[in-house]
Amino acid sequence: MIDTSFTRAFGLEHPIVSAPMARVAGGRLAAAVSAGGGLGLIGGGYCDADWIETEMAEAGNTPVGMGFITWKLDQAPGVLDRVLERRPRAVFLSFGDPVPYGERVRAAGARLFCQVQTLDDARCAVDAGADVIVAQGTEAGGHGARRATLTLVPEVADYLEGAAPGTHLLAAGGVVDGRGLAAALMLGAGGVLCGTRFWACREALVPEGQMRMALAADGDQTTRGKVIDAARGLTDWPERFDLRTLRNPFVDAWSGRAEALAADEKARAAWSEAAARGDPEMAPPIVGEGIGMICDAPAAAEILAAMSGAAERLLTGGWR
Amino acid sequence: MIDTSFTRAFGLEHPIVSAPMARVAGGRLAAAVSAGGGLGLIGGGYCDADWIETEMAEAGNTPVGMGFITWKLDQAPGVLDRVLERRPRAVFLSFGDPVPYGERVRAAGARLFCQVQTLDDARCAVDAGADVIVAQGTEAGGHGARRATLTLVPEVADYLEGAAPGTHLLAAGGVVDGRGLAAALMLGAGGVLCGTRFWACREALVPEGQMRMALAADGDQTTRGKVIDAARGLTDWPERFDLRTLRNPFVDAWSGRAEALAADEKARAAWSEAAARGDPEMAPPIVGEGIGMICDAPAAAEILAAMSGAAERLLTGGWR
Repeated sequence: MIDTSFTRAFGLEHPIVSAPMARVAGGRLAAAVSAGGGLGLIGGGYCDADWIETEMAEAGNTPVGMGFITWKLDQAPGVLDRVLERRPRAVFLSFGDPVPYGERVRAAGARLFCQVQTLDDARCAVDAGADVIVAQGTEAGGHGARRATLTLVPEVADYLEGAAPGTHLLAAGGVVDGRGLAAALMLGAGGVLCGTRFWACREALVPEGQMRMALAADGDQTTRGKVIDAARGLTDWPERFDLRTLRNPFVDAWSGRAEALAADEKARAAWSEAAARGDPEMAPPIVGEGIGMICDAPAAAEILAAMSGAAERLLTGGWR
Repeated sequence: MIDTSFTRAFGLEHPIVSAPMARVAGGRLAAAVSAGGGLGLIGGGYCDADWIETEMAEAGNTPVGMGFITWKLDQAPGVLDRVLERRPRAVFLSFGDPVPYGERVRAAGARLFCQVQTLDDARCAVDAGADVIVAQGTEAGGHGARRATLTLVPEVADYLEGAAPGTHLLAAGGVVDGRGLAAALMLGAGGVLCGTRFWACREALVPEGQMRMALAADGDQTTRGKVIDAARGLTDWPERFDLRTLRNPFVDAWSGRAEALAADEKARAAWSEAAARGDPEMAPPIVGEGIGMICDAPAAAEILAAMSGAAERLLTGGWR
């Protein structure tokens, strides 16, 4: 068992949190992660109240948390209150200013997780009263920014030591196995948040064709860009955040021309229709660079045990 | 002492190699690193024969290696032979196809280090007969590409385990202290290659104004791009490689307009004149994201001892 200040504070068996991947991390995945000894988060991302309601019900009585895209939450103020009424274990905010939400979250008895992409974001998370700061590197799948996990985590650790020493720190981006977990602990994190590893998981809500494409990919095949957000009509994402996905023929064809795609209703309609069918040649798997080290989709509980066990072996001299 | 297959094979006290930063890592720095228990590399980058000659003389009898930009070496074939006559410890190649050079380097008794930015590059390095593969992540300063250290290192480790199990693996990009070194060992590397940490070092050839700017910076302040290469007239760099530097007013002013700058002789002349004076507002420090954790420029030997000592403490339970 890997024992850190984070596992002790949250009563976890493994220092592992599953990322709230929008529409991929439903109640079933989050509950499986929490039941398996980690902490599971539901991907409430775009604040669709009905989807969130359904997935919270799916998680049942297992304690899980809820993740939001902060700038979307700004547009849907009622959603947070409805979630807080259900007494989630944690509320996870990323991609926006968490300060307006900190007090409400903590007053409702939930722990506040703030994901940050820069040192400057970390300062903001401290202002919001974050219980846990998740430092997310550019290698992560899905939305993110430019800094890498390997430098962001220790730099945020140094900052927290001075500014808010009680705050927990997790590493996110590129962590898919025991090696990544052990490395994160060396960098000063008390645990990790994993997206891609739980994307390729029995309980994740992922179309079969996307799963097949992702499991066959190596880590050179991902890219960050604005194409898929343009295809989805999500043009109000702040400029500094873009989306890491696998490259596919659609992403390659529109690369560097996201604005033209956003204005091309016919192309977007064709994309939406294919995405609804889960066609990976059009709608790519939303995964990070770590996908190159993943070639199966086991149950969440198996992932937790394997990752934690491998890290423990490394941490007790197995790296030699 | 941290003992790895890499330190044993090279008879080193510390699993640390200093990066061959072009025109920054001269003979004095390389020799100080080798004398301090690591392995020092001279930054022969652009194949200026006179500079290389001078710096090899500066290193004296201390065994050091020489680094080249591979695509520049393709244009200056005689330079390699003159270096090999001096019997360097190692030849380090990055940014191009190493296959044409592998046999000559090894026949001359030097170890071949190939730096790679992708898994695909690693396949190429194995074809070249590399003794050591350096997996360089995007967080590195100077030239580099898009993949991050945290995923590239273990993915290359997995590949080497099957394809070339005797090959050593080093991690580069973002490693500036004992935390980064310990993390790299967890990821499967046998050591690290550090640029930025030795850029900020007593023996590095760095103008004073650049040093001052870099030591005051945080890790959010770097950026990758083509602006400085355009200013220097280095427009034949392969598209996939760009340069990480600190942002400064010049980089910000030309960001996204490198082609226009390359064509603007007046702007380039003004830049060159300022660069010759070491003006950091024009010619930025060429450093990586790790600069945010660096606030001094001690002697290379002190850096080696501190990094190695801190890593050893972490590896023996100090991470808790």
